Amino acid sequence: MSHFVVAVHCGAGYHSTQKEDAYVKLCKSACLKVYHLLEKGRDAVECVTEAVKCLENSVLTNAGMGSNLNINGFVECDASIMEGKKLVFGAVGAISGVKNPVEVSATLVSRQLGDKLSLGRLHPSVIVGEGAEKWAEENEIKTLETRHLITDEAQKTYQNHKRKLDIVNERDSNKKRKLTQQRNDKTEESFDVQEEEEKIQDTVGAIVMDTSGNIASAVSSGGISLKQLGRLGPAATYGAGCWAYNQRPGKPGVGTSTSGSGEHIMKTFLARESALSIQCEDNASLGLSNCFKNNFLESEFLEEEEDKLAGVLALRQNEDNIVELLWGHTTDSMCVGYMSSSLQKPKVVMSRLPDGGVPGKSFTMSGVSI
Amino acid sequence: MSHFVVAVHCGAGYHSTQKEDAYVKLCKSACLKVYHLLEKGRDAVECVTEAVKCLENSVLTNAGMGSNLNINGFVECDASIMEGKKLVFGAVGAISGVKNPVEVSATLVSRQLGDKLSLGRLHPSVIVGEGAEKWAEENEIKTLETRHLITDEAQKTYQNHKRKLDIVNERDSNKKRKLTQQRNDKTEESFDVQEEEEKIQDTVGAIVMDTSGNIASAVSSGGISLKQLGRLGPAATYGAGCWAYNQRPGKPGVGTSTSGSGEHIMKTFLARESALSIQCEDNASLGLSNCFKNNFLESEFLEEEEDKLAGVLALRQNEDNIVELLWGHTTDSMCVGYMSSSLQKPKVVMSRLPDGGVPGKSFTMSGVSI
Repeated sequence: MSHFVVAVHCGAGYHSTQKEDAYVKLCKSACLKVYHLLEKGRDAVECVTEAVKCLENSVLTNAGMGSNLNINGFVECDASIMEGKKLVFGAVGAISGVKNPVEVSATLVSRQLGDKLSLGRLHPSVIVGEGAEKWAEENEIKTLETRHLITDEAQKTYQNHKRKLDIVNERDSNKKRKLTQQRNDKTEESFDVQEEEEKIQDTVGAIVMDTSGNIASAVSSGGISLKQLGRLGPAATYGAGCWAYNQRPGKPGVGTSTSGSGEHIMKTFLARESALSIQCEDNASLGLSNCFKNNFLESEFLEEEEDKLAGVLALRQNEDNIVELLWGHTTDSMCVGYMSSSLQKPKVVMSRLPDGGVPGKSFTMSGVSI
Repeated sequence: MSHFVVAVHCGAGYHSTQKEDAYVKLCKSACLKVYHLLEKGRDAVECVTEAVKCLENSVLTNAGMGSNLNINGFVECDASIMEGKKLVFGAVGAISGVKNPVEVSATLVSRQLGDKLSLGRLHPSVIVGEGAEKWAEENEIKTLETRHLITDEAQKTYQNHKRKLDIVNERDSNKKRKLTQQRNDKTEESFDVQEEEEKIQDTVGAIVMDTSGNIASAVSSGGISLKQLGRLGPAATYGAGCWAYNQRPGKPGVGTSTSGSGEHIMKTFLARESALSIQCEDNASLGLSNCFKNNFLESEFLEEEEDKLAGVLALRQNEDNIVELLWGHTTDSMCVGYMSSSLQKPKVVMSRLPDGGVPGKSFTMSGVSI
C-alpha cells in the first residue's frame, strides 16, 4: 500500500479549554473517516472534500452549519479547493443555502478537470452569491433554507454582537452631535466583537495526499461575525485560503490551508506564499517560519495593522516520499489533527502560543514527519 | 509642476479596424479628462477612477454600459482598484445595477484608507453580488435598473450567441442518445462564441501616477459573453486584474492593468507577477517579456490551455523620475492611450500582433519613456 496522509485544522484563533475535548473529537473523527476512504484508494480531491464536510457539519466550527452570522443575521459561506496535479482551483463565495459549501468548490474543480464547455467558453473557477446557489442546484448539490444553517449559539452570539454594535452606533451619533469623533476611542475596547468568551476560531481546512501522491487542499468559512453582506473572504480567494502542488522533478510536493484574520491573509496571499517558501527551502520549517516573518508579521502590506492574525497548516512531500506536516500560527491557538498510512490512530494537537507570546505579534510553530 | 502620467487601455482582444477610430477617440478623451484633473493636483485613486468611468460609460467597451450579457441575458460587472502608497485593494464582483462598478471599488479603497470600523471589525476589501449592490446604495453610489446597462448591440450579440448555444446543446443531446460524445468536436468550431466579427475586447483599465508620485491602477469588465451567473473574473480578483506599488528605497514604483482570457489571468496572477517581474529587472521591457514567457505562455498553470490570451499595460517609475510605459499582449490587438505632463496631447496606439503572429501563442510588446 502506498503512503497517504490526511490533515485537518479547525481554525486558527481562540479555542476555549472547555471545548477542547470536543475539538479533539471532531478532528479525530474527520481524520478517521478520510483515512478509510484513502485506504480504499479514493483520490485527494474527493477526500479533502469529505474532510471539510465533516468540519462544516459540526456546529463547533465557523463553517457550514453553525457559521458566524453576517450583519443582516444570516449565514454566507466561502469555500475553496485546489488540486496539485493539474493545478486547478475552485471557489464559491458569499453563498447561503448550501449545506456543504466545499461541495460546490469540489464540483467546480471537477468540471474544470472534465470536458470543455461548448462554444469555446471556459468553466468558471470562482462563483459567488445567488448565481452560485443556482449553479449548485443545477449541479445537484444539496441546498436548504439558509435558516437551517443557523445554530442557537450563533444566533445568541449575533444578538449579543448586534446589541453592542447598536450601542456603539448610538453613542457615536450622539458624540458627533457634541464633538468631533475621536479616531481611537478607548471606551470602545470593552465592546470588541472578539471578546474572550465569544472568540470563534476562523476558517477550517484540510490537506490530503492520496495513494498516488496527489495533493489537494481546502478551506471553508462562515467569515467574521457581523460581516458586510456579500463580503468575500480568503476562503474564496485564490492564493489566500489554500494551495496545492504535486511533486515535480526538482520540486517537493506541497499543500497549505490557512486560517485567521481574512483581510490579512488575502493581502499577503498567505497560502501561496507559504507553499512557495516551504518548497524553496531545504528545511521545510525554515520555509514556513521565513514566510511568517518576512511575508506576514513584517509584511509591508500589513504595515497599518496592529495585530496580524493567521495560522497555516502545511504538508510537504519530499523526494524520499517522507511527508512533513507543519503548523504555525500567530493566533492564541490552532487545532490540528492528522492521520497517515503509517499511524495506528489519528493524532490531534491543540497548539497554543507559549507563555509570554502575544497574539498578533508572536509566532509559534511545530511539526511532525509521518 | 511635478511629473504626472495617465494611461488607459480599452482591452486586449480583437479590435475591428472599422471601429478603430472610435477606440482612439475614446482613449484620447479619457486621457484628456484625467490630465486636467492631475494638473489640478487630484490624487491617483480619484484619477484612475475617472479614467475607468470614461471607459465604462462608453458603449464601445465591455465594461459598465454595453457589457457582455451573461447566460441569463443580463449584465454582471467586476471592477477593482489598487493604490500603491498603503497597498490597499478594493474590488466588486458580479454586480448588476450600478452605473460605474469602478466607483464601488474606489469607495472600498477609500473606506479602508479611512477610519476603522467599530467593534474591531475590518472594512471588506472585496464585496460581491446583491450584498455589493446594497453596500453601493448605502454609500450613495449611483444605482440603476440593470436593463439600462444593456445596449442594443450587446442584446443582439447575446441573442446570436444564445441561439448558437441552443443549437449546440440540442445537437449534443441528440448525439448522446446516439453515441458517446466526442471530447473535441470539430464541427463545433464554426459556432465559437469568439467569432471574428463579434469578438469583443475584454477588461478595460487604467494606470495613473499623480503629482506626488502615487501610483494607482484599475480594471473593469463585463466578463465573457454567456458567462455563468455569479462568475467572478480577474477584474475582481486580487493580484490578477491590477497592481500598484509606489516607489520605495531600492524599488521602482510600478502599476499594471491586465486584460484577456479571465481564467488564464487569474491562474497566473498576471497583474502582480508582471509588476514584480518589471520591478526586479533593470530593464523594464525585459521584466515584462520574461513574465509573459515564463509566467504566462510557458506557465505550468496553463499547460492544459491551447491558446493563452492576455495583455498587460504597465507603468514603471524609475528613481530619476523617468516613467516608462509598456504594453504587451498575446491577443490580436490591444488599444492603449496615454498622456503626461511632458506631452502636448494624448497619444493612442492600436497595437496588433505582427504578421505571422498567432493569437494565444505569440507575444508582442512596445513601450515609451514619458
